[in-house]
Amino acid sequence: MSSLTLADVYRARQRLAGRVAPTPLVASASLTERSGVPVYLKLETVQPTGSFKLRGATNALAQLAQEGVRRVVTASTGNHGRALAYAAHALGIEAAVCMSALVPQNKVRAVAALGARIVIAGHSQDDAQIEAQRLVRKEGYAFVPPFDDARVIAGQATIGLEILEALPDAATLIVPLSGGGLFSGVAFAAKAIRPDVTMIGVSMARGAAMHASLAAGKPVPVDELETLADSLGGGIGLDNRHTFAMTRALIDDVVLLDEASIARGIVHAYREERLVVEGAAAVGIAALLDGRIGHIERQADSSDTAGPIVVVLSGANIDMAQHLRIISDN
Amino acid sequence: MSSLTLADVYRARQRLAGRVAPTPLVASASLTERSGVPVYLKLETVQPTGSFKLRGATNALAQLAQEGVRRVVTASTGNHGRALAYAAHALGIEAAVCMSALVPQNKVRAVAALGARIVIAGHSQDDAQIEAQRLVRKEGYAFVPPFDDARVIAGQATIGLEILEALPDAATLIVPLSGGGLFSGVAFAAKAIRPDVTMIGVSMARGAAMHASLAAGKPVPVDELETLADSLGGGIGLDNRHTFAMTRALIDDVVLLDEASIARGIVHAYREERLVVEGAAAVGIAALLDGRIGHIERQADSSDTAGPIVVVLSGANIDMAQHLRIISDN
Repeated sequence: MSSLTLADVYRARQRLAGRVAPTPLVASASLTERSGVPVYLKLETVQPTGSFKLRGATNALAQLAQEGVRRVVTASTGNHGRALAYAAHALGIEAAVCMSALVPQNKVRAVAALGARIVIAGHSQDDAQIEAQRLVRKEGYAFVPPFDDARVIAGQATIGLEILEALPDAATLIVPLSGGGLFSGVAFAAKAIRPDVTMIGVSMARGAAMHASLAAGKPVPVDELETLADSLGGGIGLDNRHTFAMTRALIDDVVLLDEASIARGIVHAYREERLVVEGAAAVGIAALLDGRIGHIERQADSSDTAGPIVVVLSGANIDMAQHLRIISDN
Repeated sequence: MSSLTLADVYRARQRLAGRVAPTPLVASASLTERSGVPVYLKLETVQPTGSFKLRGATNALAQLAQEGVRRVVTASTGNHGRALAYAAHALGIEAAVCMSALVPQNKVRAVAALGARIVIAGHSQDDAQIEAQRLVRKEGYAFVPPFDDARVIAGQATIGLEILEALPDAATLIVPLSGGGLFSGVAFAAKAIRPDVTMIGVSMARGAAMHASLAAGKPVPVDELETLADSLGGGIGLDNRHTFAMTRALIDDVVLLDEASIARGIVHAYREERLVVEGAAAVGIAALLDGRIGHIERQADSSDTAGPIVVVLSGANIDMAQHLRIISDN
């Protein structure tokens, strides 16, 4: 189990100050009406790199820069790669992002445009990982993991602080669940402040690595399958050090969604909330629309009022041609 | 000329604190690349009522409530009506919104859902105005104008404060121009802090009342024509007390756009910024895309670097069927 403390999260927020602005927490009229309790949306979609990942990357890099590190590397082609490139540029240090030769050119360009050194190696994500480790050994780069890192988790945890400060009586937080960096960070901060908050993780049914690992009682590999929630894909690492134990300790319920449900979440976000969200960010809305947040229904059955729900919308980095197809077809 | 002071704007911000959160200011990679200078977007689209109008309404109603007023009324069917209803509910006072019988049911329902008393009167916006004045005389309501009011202007001006605090070297602000409440508020605050900032107002060519009034040297009526930027329609009031003089004193340039250009702005916001904006909010982006911000080009010709540009995206309240048509057809 990680030794993360609430003080680490507050220090992360101090490092983010002036670099990563707090994001809006907005009431959703449509989801409030459907759920019977107030529902709020936490808009990580407005982050400069289009996802929450900027928080963890900024917190990690600010500490590394303080320690004298001048070069950082990772192997992500997605939101973490963008965040690392952006944060490194802002802090005046060098970022290298390793990718396989199969990564589409638009993804390569998006990271390169943020000022990162692009290193193309091999033909798989594993090859890119091996190249990143080579840069660590041979060229003095510091590796920054996408989620299983205490500094990254502390950065994501600042979302939990912001939610509880804006809405002190938040009763249920619905958070996308992948490698667990976002989930365990938000859950840690929220439960540290308000121990009785209910933490619900939501994944796609196709390749939910953390769910499978929780069921097995240890990190297990999963087949990575194509999904609309592609940011939630990938394993949690068989040598997971932080997020598996933290998620297991902090999670109250897991919801798994099929692809049609995720598409409904994307459409609802667009039509009712006027928001463009990626599939990974639509899962919380989709779980509410599908009536999958059982905790709420149980509370509604009793005479107590279930407190407010907060849904974390983690990012907006969807292919826009795909987005237009989804909102046109549904 | 209004006697608005910067202290009024700071007091407005204190009244907004805890009620209307600051909105994000995000860098636009695509517009920065096209413009050759850094471009930022001020996202009033994420306000709880979907537009900046909540600022002015909240500032006005907080003062009225303090003075003991318990009932407020207006005749707007759009963003001001929603903002008034929301702010009144939050402050625990009663709001009445007068509308003609021709207002579409979905607009009526949107305001009613926010807790306002709906008063249907006559068959035109003028009839609704007359009914609002009747409520003032006969039922003790306080009238809250949509823009030509010092308290409303001071509320909108808090946007200028937020911009200059987040980006102290902002050189050019591009703001939608309609009745002038948003424009003169933002321009007043921005020039009070940074006198050399360039203020550009953007309207649709079809029925630009403030532009026609500036050209005539006094408030003049215009025909209200159908436009994608419908929130910018309507006159500035022949008895205008504040916004005409303020806008005339503070504006550096006016840009007028045709409908195709406004549509391109909506499409660009969706495709490149992953944002849903109403037509009125798309005009600043459209002006940049059309190369209509001449000031920038002049500065770029010189050896000086033109400073950062901020584009105010005023709201997201577009009919979503219309939005889908526009992004599908362009």
